[in-house]
Amino acid sequence: MRKLAARNYRGTRDWLGGEALLRQQVVDTLQEVFEEFGFEPLETPEIELYEVLMGKYGEEAQPLIYYFQWGDDWIGLRYDHTVPLARVVAQHANEIVFPYRRYAIGPVFRAEEPQAGRYRRFIQCDFDIVGVADLIADAEIVAVTYTALERLGFKSFEIQINDRRLLNGIAKATGAETKDQVLTLLRSWDKMEKVSREQLAKELKEKRVSQKLIERFFEVTDMLLSLEKENILNEISRIFSNQPEVVEGVNALEKLLEYIADFGVPSQFYRVNPLLARGLDYYTGPIFETIVKEARIGSITGGGRYDNLIETLGGPSLPATGSSFGLERIISVMEKLGIAKIKRTNTQVFVAVFEPESAESMKKAIQFTNALRKEGIKTELSMVKAPIGRQLKIADQRGIPIAVFAGPKEIANRKVIIKDLTMPFVGERKDIWANQWEVPEENLVDKVKELLKSKGLLS
Amino acid sequence: MRKLAARNYRGTRDWLGGEALLRQQVVDTLQEVFEEFGFEPLETPEIELYEVLMGKYGEEAQPLIYYFQWGDDWIGLRYDHTVPLARVVAQHANEIVFPYRRYAIGPVFRAEEPQAGRYRRFIQCDFDIVGVADLIADAEIVAVTYTALERLGFKSFEIQINDRRLLNGIAKATGAETKDQVLTLLRSWDKMEKVSREQLAKELKEKRVSQKLIERFFEVTDMLLSLEKENILNEISRIFSNQPEVVEGVNALEKLLEYIADFGVPSQFYRVNPLLARGLDYYTGPIFETIVKEARIGSITGGGRYDNLIETLGGPSLPATGSSFGLERIISVMEKLGIAKIKRTNTQVFVAVFEPESAESMKKAIQFTNALRKEGIKTELSMVKAPIGRQLKIADQRGIPIAVFAGPKEIANRKVIIKDLTMPFVGERKDIWANQWEVPEENLVDKVKELLKSKGLLS
Repeated sequence: MRKLAARNYRGTRDWLGGEALLRQQVVDTLQEVFEEFGFEPLETPEIELYEVLMGKYGEEAQPLIYYFQWGDDWIGLRYDHTVPLARVVAQHANEIVFPYRRYAIGPVFRAEEPQAGRYRRFIQCDFDIVGVADLIADAEIVAVTYTALERLGFKSFEIQINDRRLLNGIAKATGAETKDQVLTLLRSWDKMEKVSREQLAKELKEKRVSQKLIERFFEVTDMLLSLEKENILNEISRIFSNQPEVVEGVNALEKLLEYIADFGVPSQFYRVNPLLARGLDYYTGPIFETIVKEARIGSITGGGRYDNLIETLGGPSLPATGSSFGLERIISVMEKLGIAKIKRTNTQVFVAVFEPESAESMKKAIQFTNALRKEGIKTELSMVKAPIGRQLKIADQRGIPIAVFAGPKEIANRKVIIKDLTMPFVGERKDIWANQWEVPEENLVDKVKELLKSKGLLS
Repeated sequence: MRKLAARNYRGTRDWLGGEALLRQQVVDTLQEVFEEFGFEPLETPEIELYEVLMGKYGEEAQPLIYYFQWGDDWIGLRYDHTVPLARVVAQHANEIVFPYRRYAIGPVFRAEEPQAGRYRRFIQCDFDIVGVADLIADAEIVAVTYTALERLGFKSFEIQINDRRLLNGIAKATGAETKDQVLTLLRSWDKMEKVSREQLAKELKEKRVSQKLIERFFEVTDMLLSLEKENILNEISRIFSNQPEVVEGVNALEKLLEYIADFGVPSQFYRVNPLLARGLDYYTGPIFETIVKEARIGSITGGGRYDNLIETLGGPSLPATGSSFGLERIISVMEKLGIAKIKRTNTQVFVAVFEPESAESMKKAIQFTNALRKEGIKTELSMVKAPIGRQLKIADQRGIPIAVFAGPKEIANRKVIIKDLTMPFVGERKDIWANQWEVPEENLVDKVKELLKSKGLLS
């Protein structure tokens, strides 16, 4: 075996220690909320036949899909959880009891140029309802989004809502004549907050959009931006009253807002944004995105309704809607806002071995370890052949709150020493005799439990 | 978008409904045990630079690694969690406090010919200790294996233990002269229980092993198989007393067995198997495998010590040992043995909408739903525009135990109907009026909690 430089594929990374624990906490909270709302888990493979992924996402996303040939098959790494869900529904329609509410938490892959906080492999946490055409489903998607973010500790965020029909209608009223032109304008609106107007105009020109249409595009954009937020749907409906799609979109959004209020989502957490477009091709109705303004990081959730996708994949004609949390972005924002509960370890007790070379000392330590673990207490047995002080230093570096050990005298007296590693040291910082109790061996578990309870680490 | 046949890449599959819930349960139990033993989570990407995976596994495994070129990079799908762990340790040695005990639960990929129960993408649940040369670490690996299987409900299994040094020494005593010949004999022992002797002899011949060595190989095999199990280490040590590696291996195994007993693992759950070899190249000391005889499915766990791998990847010279649970195999055996706790759903309450087209009826249903979810009760709001009987049928098909609804009369009286869907129906099976209670709206949550408690679904 030759010796190699150890590194990750660029744009991917490892998650260790406290960062891995934080990811676990966030995933657990999302899963808890998804299940409270009656969603069930679905696991699909990270690799799909490329033909399943091909042609579903639109011209901007398609080049970001990793794919390769293996034997006779073309394999792709999944780009999101939505197309796999649509495939599953198409494939297993007879086993599923509809409406089907599922969540999926796992990695997706995109061959993008990596940037700070943008990875080529990241975790998406999706939740979708398949089989409900009514806007009650879209409202529940928004309610899940609100509940999850609130439970994660977010105090201020904005769930932006729009409807693809409204946007399609406005694009047509702007002068877009073909389906391609409509999509081109939509994608430009989607980029509005990310790139400059000069850049946008340049891109539109490159896509052979006429100068006249480009001018109209910016005029309509400015007009939409100038609308009063409070009354925005009425205004849009008035201005585009001769575009049936706009009217349809406005009516849908009005009903949707009513349902969202019924679900108890406070009004400061959501609003209609008529410029919200979402990049992907497959959306057909309401679309959603969550912005945390203070974080300046783009959206932390995104989704929408995709009523045709399942049929496209060979399945029955089934309406569907859903959204997705980006784990890395959520955590990055939580860290910026100071709401991430960071802990260094889940381990509760460190059992040190007083004389690592003595069989008796090791036997005793194993005995303590067994007793604690039997009670479900998360316990590390020290395996370092080093003096007790060095062992306790390891426990302290890990952030383990309690250490347990017994020297020859204690062993002879059937006693054990329990040491609180979190209490402020009295006198010498490294004085291993401070903040500790000697108890009979048979009281070990009770005393440890008492200490853990006093620290809020055991209920 | 063209219409396509929806299917998986061959050798991969989706996990839905009760099967997904069972996987979740098993993963949760493993995670619980890993944490009880002081292991912490590590997440690495599914994609690695191919050079990291290349040349680490040996000639049989290497062709099973999926890899492809993307831009200037050669990317591989990870084959296991061990090489990624070794890479992480090599890469992050300065951040990690050793000994490093980590677990990793996630998919691995192997380009094998799929068979019943053998997938090209499956979940491995690994746990390893890096930085401990002492056999106490290997013993703890065995203790984790025992504890996890016992907690999953397994009543009978055998953790087989061997040592690569012992096997290397026996291979040399048999007549293997080069490192390649030693590995060839080891791989043949590893296959002993899977293929016929004729097949093995043919394969050895193809690898240009001399007829004499092949004959000696089978003689030694028969001799090892004839040894009394109770006294096997003494016998081996006596027979191969002039092979220092065998003696080293025997001494290690004796010490290991003593430690395993100290950890409280009952003796019927583990034994030395001198023919156990494990296919991979990187093992250097004790190796482990768990067999469930009744299931006839091969091993459900496997692992061993790999003291050189981290250095090979450019890291410090650090000893390491660990093992892995194969999720699909574990579950398959649990199902065969009838110890899998199968449930159809985690959802506890189904809120039906008495008159789906009435805004008032829907508003009331949302109100009940909000109240239940606020208490953490997993609740599905019905979204089907169908009569109440059809809605309750959906709840029943899902396996949801309790339904809640209110008709116009109940709404007028501020009452709500709570229905137990699990109780045997009296009279007509589909009589929606059986096994139900009418309570004041404000008592909804309490009555539901009482019912859930009586079913053991709430603590």
